[in-house]
Amino acid sequence: MPWLDALTWDADGLIPAIAQDAHSGRVLMLAWMNREALAETVREGFAVYWSRSRQRFWRKGEESGHVQRVRAIRTDCDGDAILLAVEQEGGIACHTGRQSCFFYQTDGAHWQVVDPVLKNPGEIYKK
Amino acid sequence: MPWLDALTWDADGLIPAIAQDAHSGRVLMLAWMNREALAETVREGFAVYWSRSRQRFWRKGEESGHVQRVRAIRTDCDGDAILLAVEQEGGIACHTGRQSCFFYQTDGAHWQVVDPVLKNPGEIYKK
Repeated sequence: MPWLDALTWDADGLIPAIAQDAHSGRVLMLAWMNREALAETVREGFAVYWSRSRQRFWRKGEESGHVQRVRAIRTDCDGDAILLAVEQEGGIACHTGRQSCFFYQTDGAHWQVVDPVLKNPGEIYKK
Repeated sequence: MPWLDALTWDADGLIPAIAQDAHSGRVLMLAWMNREALAETVREGFAVYWSRSRQRFWRKGEESGHVQRVRAIRTDCDGDAILLAVEQEGGIACHTGRQSCFFYQTDGAHWQVVDPVLKNPGEIYKK
């Protein structure tokens, strides 16, 4: 069975994709892919997601320059999730200028910001 | 805003939850939670998921004994994904007897099993 057919796509034709830093092991983000985004990721060697909000392909880093070079692509026992090992350009995955999008931690009552901003978003996204 | 209300739940009231080994950094699995599962995870200190296939709460390890003690709970910039730092009992998260559910890797054409079975499932699930 072709590898893309072995995956379980949801009702919208999507699969969740976790990007993990290949060196530090830090989980950087969770985004979504459709078949074409995943195939394109393999072809280009850089992460390409499907933006659910914008309903279009999202070449990670297309505006920020913070591309993700993909070193390995895994799936799980159910074939319904993807795990990417990536080299994160600039060491910043999040549009807020943080290393990881997972920068809120809960104390069981509130969410606290627990990671620093490494670069001002105004600098990242200046035209 | 109460922390559970700050999250973005999907049309089925679910949010994807990544479990990461607190010590090794290995991504162990991706499962789903509803509000009650996440609240229960905080109350119990052990991961509780919502099984989409069985449509019921899934206390991770309830059959296998491979519970996940939760050390930290994070969410991302969009509040639409959860990242758990866990101590994995037995060092095995997957029902196949492997450390992680993400044991298939692609060469761009097929999926290859790249991780060893640490314990025979027949031993894990014997009654």
